[in-house]
Amino acid sequence: THHSLLITELTTQFSFQVSTRCSQTKARVGVFYTPHGAVETPRFMPVGTLANVKTVTPTQLQETGAQMVLANTYHLHLQPGERIVEKAGGLHQFMRWNQPILTDSGGFQVFSLSEMRQITDDGVIFRSPHDGQMINLTPERSIQIQNALGADVIMAFDECPPYPASREEVEAATQRTYRWLERCISAHQRPDQALFGIVQGGVYPDLRAAAAEALAGLDLPGYAIGGVSVGEPPELIAKIVQATTPMLPVDKPRYLMGVGTYKEMAQAIASGMDLFDCVIPTRLARHGAALVKGERWNLKNSQYREDFQPLDETCPCYTCQNFTRAYISHLVRSQEILAYTLLTIHNITELVRFTQKIREAIISDRFTTEFAQWLS
Amino acid sequence: THHSLLITELTTQFSFQVSTRCSQTKARVGVFYTPHGAVETPRFMPVGTLANVKTVTPTQLQETGAQMVLANTYHLHLQPGERIVEKAGGLHQFMRWNQPILTDSGGFQVFSLSEMRQITDDGVIFRSPHDGQMINLTPERSIQIQNALGADVIMAFDECPPYPASREEVEAATQRTYRWLERCISAHQRPDQALFGIVQGGVYPDLRAAAAEALAGLDLPGYAIGGVSVGEPPELIAKIVQATTPMLPVDKPRYLMGVGTYKEMAQAIASGMDLFDCVIPTRLARHGAALVKGERWNLKNSQYREDFQPLDETCPCYTCQNFTRAYISHLVRSQEILAYTLLTIHNITELVRFTQKIREAIISDRFTTEFAQWLS
Ligand SMILES: [Zn+2]
Ligand SMILES: [Zn+2]
Repeated sequence: THHSLLITELTTQFSFQVSTRCSQTKARVGVFYTPHGAVETPRFMPVGTLANVKTVTPTQLQETGAQMVLANTYHLHLQPGERIVEKAGGLHQFMRWNQPILTDSGGFQVFSLSEMRQITDDGVIFRSPHDGQMINLTPERSIQIQNALGADVIMAFDECPPYPASREEVEAATQRTYRWLERCISAHQRPDQALFGIVQGGVYPDLRAAAAEALAGLDLPGYAIGGVSVGEPPELIAKIVQATTPMLPVDKPRYLMGVGTYKEMAQAIASGMDLFDCVIPTRLARHGAALVKGERWNLKNSQYREDFQPLDETCPCYTCQNFTRAYISHLVRSQEILAYTLLTIHNITELVRFTQKIREAIISDRFTTEFAQWLS
Repeated sequence: THHSLLITELTTQFSFQVSTRCSQTKARVGVFYTPHGAVETPRFMPVGTLANVKTVTPTQLQETGAQMVLANTYHLHLQPGERIVEKAGGLHQFMRWNQPILTDSGGFQVFSLSEMRQITDDGVIFRSPHDGQMINLTPERSIQIQNALGADVIMAFDECPPYPASREEVEAATQRTYRWLERCISAHQRPDQALFGIVQGGVYPDLRAAAAEALAGLDLPGYAIGGVSVGEPPELIAKIVQATTPMLPVDKPRYLMGVGTYKEMAQAIASGMDLFDCVIPTRLARHGAALVKGERWNLKNSQYREDFQPLDETCPCYTCQNFTRAYISHLVRSQEILAYTLLTIHNITELVRFTQKIREAIISDRFTTEFAQWLS
């Protein structure tokens, strides 16, 4: 009973409260409470694959307005290994991020990155790109690793079918994902971590709906839509989300995995999604590109060489408050690392602000008018 | 007369005040005042070649305790070009560094980096590595470029002979350097910039002394020793400095160019030098190495993988206040850019602190005892 009490006490550290609903769409404004603080939804989450968001310090990251940050279980298992992170006191302490952290399950990377994989009902066997050793990743092992890493939110180990895939392949992957989810729930040991289930189902709306309905029965602290943004036409994302969200509990946070473009986020929010992540803002930054008011700018273009304005005069970020397009263009042309840092700070701020502005628009019930350009 | 008054007014923005002298050595503690604030000497200055200190923001740089920062005229002339920097409002505004800046003359880079150079009494002709065009750099042109860049301290265009070089070659270069200095003084247009002369003379003490004596007669606002750390044995640096400083005015700042190692700085300070610069702390950082208490550590070494201490528990820098050796080692192994940023912050802080500690030791007259290990 002592153990049960502890679990009850700790799981109450997670709660999701919806405060406002849009009158025109299924969009909602909420707050997701975790042991490391609150996440105001809807909200974009930056990706910190190897226990850091590339090119920025935690202090710089905090100034972007980011609240929850992702880290990748697959990459951290390979380097430095979860045992070192655990010895360091967990991910928060290791990377010095005192706000919420979410780890993925490693499934997506195993299916998309690794070679020589063999998938069975038990799990996935793949060759480590570091030392060539065979690694066996199962639902239990993924949860063990995530328990050792210690993020606030951990993700179920799922099978993400490729695109395109036949209905039969997707159906089999969806059913396996459900069986693996049950094993993840059994393996999960830490009540201070919330385990989210992942809805698969490819581009088949009825498979998505059925999977969502099945997962909803498990009363998890949160739900994700996975297996999108894997090569399908972008317009299918909205259709997949529309088919899925009606089957998900209204009182739990909903996370659309791997999606972080303006239009796709706005449309998913209109269908009732709350959380988003994407490597685009950080990856674009490392290619010398800025996200400005919905556009992508290549700072190497000659038009910026003598442009002494900030990237976006309305942006509160460190980069826009201090530097000109001409300076950033000079740094990009010179391949100076500082260019990537300054662009990463701006790009993350830009996408976090985009979701913050949608949040404010929902609160004042102007979402469909203010964001009409993204919703059609 | 309005112009003369203005010059008088502005040149008084530069002054150097020695407050304490060591009782055992020629070391001194001073403050060098510039239009962008004071530099407390002795002090290490980090290098910001292309209008940024690689991998760190101005905010991070300021937190290291750096006061005066270098930028390279040669590199900035090639990219983005001094015209763009001037249009931006000068280097301080362009790179957002509101403390003192020093630009070198470009001479050292032309002599050491560029191909196809032709040296005459007029100047140096070399091929631009950017577009292959021939560039003619003369004393006048170097000063024009530095006037456009707008640093607080600008350096005379000098001929830096290679090592080894015959006495005749060095003597010719030293004499040409003096003639070029006279042309630099005539070309210099901005009284809000202080033009420092450079003592050449290779490894020949009598040539150094004669050059210093000649330069002293020109009553410049500061003096540098150049042409060291160009391949000669390190122990010769102290000998060169010892031969030069007695001929330099005691009431002007003295800058030892390109030197920033513990021992060489301590010994030069004992001979009366005040300012130092070196790319080592930033370059080492980009190779995954930290300067800790006089040693170089390669953070990739396996001994750091599970070492959960800060780099230096006595260091006040952002890196040491927040991160463990294990975390930095993980980032270095993962080739994450954040590793280079964190190591750069620490390494610059370490060398600035080294010179700050010497400063405090001189004030309390404990320099030769506290820094005995570096002075022998
Ligand atoms: Zn910005
Ligand atoms: Zn430090």
